[in-house]
Amino acid sequence: MRVAELIVKKREGLALNSQEIEYLVHGYTQGEIPDYQMSALLMAVFFRGMTEEETAALTLSMATSGETADLSALPGLAVDKHSTGGVADTTTLALAPWAASCGVTVAKMSGRGLGHTGGTIDKLESIPGFRTSLTQAEFIKQVREINIAVAGQSGSLAPADQKLYALRDVTGTVESIPLIASSIMSKKIAAGAGAIVLDVKTGSGAFMKNPEEARKLARAMVAIGKNSGRRTVAVVSDMNEPLGSAIGNALEVEEAIQVLRGETKGRLLQLCLSLGAQMLILAGKAADTVQAEALLQDALHSGRALQKMAEFISAQGGDPAVLENTALLPRAAFNREITAPFDGYFFIKDTQALGYAAMLLGAGRERKDSVIDLAVGLKLGKRNGAAVKSGEPLLTVYYNREERLPEAVKILEQAIAVVPVKPADHPLVYEIIA
Amino acid sequence: MRVAELIVKKREGLALNSQEIEYLVHGYTQGEIPDYQMSALLMAVFFRGMTEEETAALTLSMATSGETADLSALPGLAVDKHSTGGVADTTTLALAPWAASCGVTVAKMSGRGLGHTGGTIDKLESIPGFRTSLTQAEFIKQVREINIAVAGQSGSLAPADQKLYALRDVTGTVESIPLIASSIMSKKIAAGAGAIVLDVKTGSGAFMKNPEEARKLARAMVAIGKNSGRRTVAVVSDMNEPLGSAIGNALEVEEAIQVLRGETKGRLLQLCLSLGAQMLILAGKAADTVQAEALLQDALHSGRALQKMAEFISAQGGDPAVLENTALLPRAAFNREITAPFDGYFFIKDTQALGYAAMLLGAGRERKDSVIDLAVGLKLGKRNGAAVKSGEPLLTVYYNREERLPEAVKILEQAIAVVPVKPADHPLVYEIIA
Repeated sequence: MRVAELIVKKREGLALNSQEIEYLVHGYTQGEIPDYQMSALLMAVFFRGMTEEETAALTLSMATSGETADLSALPGLAVDKHSTGGVADTTTLALAPWAASCGVTVAKMSGRGLGHTGGTIDKLESIPGFRTSLTQAEFIKQVREINIAVAGQSGSLAPADQKLYALRDVTGTVESIPLIASSIMSKKIAAGAGAIVLDVKTGSGAFMKNPEEARKLARAMVAIGKNSGRRTVAVVSDMNEPLGSAIGNALEVEEAIQVLRGETKGRLLQLCLSLGAQMLILAGKAADTVQAEALLQDALHSGRALQKMAEFISAQGGDPAVLENTALLPRAAFNREITAPFDGYFFIKDTQALGYAAMLLGAGRERKDSVIDLAVGLKLGKRNGAAVKSGEPLLTVYYNREERLPEAVKILEQAIAVVPVKPADHPLVYEIIA
Repeated sequence: MRVAELIVKKREGLALNSQEIEYLVHGYTQGEIPDYQMSALLMAVFFRGMTEEETAALTLSMATSGETADLSALPGLAVDKHSTGGVADTTTLALAPWAASCGVTVAKMSGRGLGHTGGTIDKLESIPGFRTSLTQAEFIKQVREINIAVAGQSGSLAPADQKLYALRDVTGTVESIPLIASSIMSKKIAAGAGAIVLDVKTGSGAFMKNPEEARKLARAMVAIGKNSGRRTVAVVSDMNEPLGSAIGNALEVEEAIQVLRGETKGRLLQLCLSLGAQMLILAGKAADTVQAEALLQDALHSGRALQKMAEFISAQGGDPAVLENTALLPRAAFNREITAPFDGYFFIKDTQALGYAAMLLGAGRERKDSVIDLAVGLKLGKRNGAAVKSGEPLLTVYYNREERLPEAVKILEQAIAVVPVKPADHPLVYEIIA
């Protein structure tokens, strides 16, 4: 096969077959096909798109480009839950033990955060003693014993995706639905997921700014799941405002604990129930969302979800006392409140900017090698649209390094406002695509 | 400027400004911008096209990416004539001295042939003693003395174009009108052309198979000329059949000499008159095509055109005796006739295949470093559409290496035919775009 001819084939709008795609992905991963041919192909894909069959073939070629996790020794089907990245979104942290307490097999390989959204592994590491590096044997053993393990993703899973992602980043080929969809799904498949619940975010705080694009991405990923034998459901959910109230690693762990204690309500809890219900259904633990949500409510109110969290933390070396006493989590040295300048309604204008401000404080990584500060972040005092009185706290900034505060505050003051008219509510779930 | 952002800008259909284009071309030529970013940009250009202003900026950036020929010491405006590549097209060889004999300044830097079409420099080198490597000083002096010099193109003219062309070749980005147009025009401008007559070929023997694409390319190049201060005229001409009857270096020199002796008629002579007329008009030697063609006819019939060819050959070290005795040109050791199998009409089905067969015999280069055989080639005994009798010679193959004959003959037998119905004539000139 000549690579230039395959590029022209795609450029002219014809579909590549699975042998051709495998040849390209394998050759590229091995360094036999140069970056300059792959980037031209990626740009042709940007303009021409890919068929469902092409996207599935690309996903499987990437998923099998390196090591793959073998979860066949587990008793049940591992159900993975993945978010495309939101702000104040601690659903994974709450749902992993909660779903496990309902009998779902949770065997999760998770990534670290990059940019304005946090990563589950980083958040877990703010629990004193918690260990995210597990051997394959430890990982399997733990899942068999307590139905849940969450480990950092190995660098050798889906190396083709890693290499392609780095290339797309510098060649203007990030924003392509089949490329985004196959990148996400290849990692899930390489990590051994048997069924996948996707939380596809849309809105000002998400990568997909508009719901129609998010729906397209969701449909593309569900189609990949179907074409590769992994039952996949996508929930298209709102990210025009932060999901919960905490942004930052330890702060989000605290909020997840509050969820498991039954102390929260609102959008974070609602989305946990929506996503959790899909996990239970895919795992065969419930027939429909009504039954699934009832099972989840029961696990929550009986304390079994919190108990599973305790087992999970203990199994991975962490101190479960944090569940009773969140003061054991890392705490920032300083905090600064931003208050309402006058009476009105709280309005979050730019959700992504909140994530970005937290990142600047040290809660997230600007680059892959940035060192993060687990203690710092933000906590919203009010929900979007809440009535506020002059002087009431809108938001608290938790920080350690004084010099980082001014820029973060400047960004925050532009990202939020008090307005005279109540801002419109956003729906939480736009669509569930199965 | 961030390269990835410029790629996205182009990808989204916005126009790059001339500073951005200069930054990209300069950075790429210097090796500061990697191939993988440039190939993604080229693919975006393939899909989005370029405005006239962008194409002109790209052309000028490429033209000035290395050395440029300084022809300011010449008394007149140097008028260049360029063909996009045809089969049996020896117009440049005939027209250079012919136009010079009418007072046009011919100061031509020319390339070598690649693929199925010949290069003027190769053809000239089949004249015994002819030297195509001239210093800049020799070149200028000769043009000042006799109004004509033709030299091999220096490797350092328009290096950006060379690098970009090589990249396009392996990344499926050759077939883009603005990229083709800017590649051609950048070399002409770097070589010092003050005005340019373009012969844009269309048909089965040309790169542009259909007239509409050829018209687009012609318009793009004329627009570049306008936007870069070089008066440019394009003649869109037919290449569904070979222009003359000879294919191969020495054979084409012989045919050019026949033109200058006034011994030919038909399409080759007609196109020389059309293109030559445009050269005279651009040089200010004639007001319109009627006057220009009259001047050309006079130069031909008075023998001044042939006399100029003699001066030109002598000035560059060649033996002008070839003009009287073409047997002094290299001759192939063997020849083979292909004859009509029955009565009918001669039909050239695939003009490009004739050029390809000649290349296989050694007349052209398959790769840049191929060594060519100046003596070999083909001579058509009949024009396309001519009535032929069974056994009459249709075509003579001139060859030196026996082992190359069978494949060439096989290709030729598929490229030509005798048919019972007279094939339709092709017009010679589709359009003149000024």
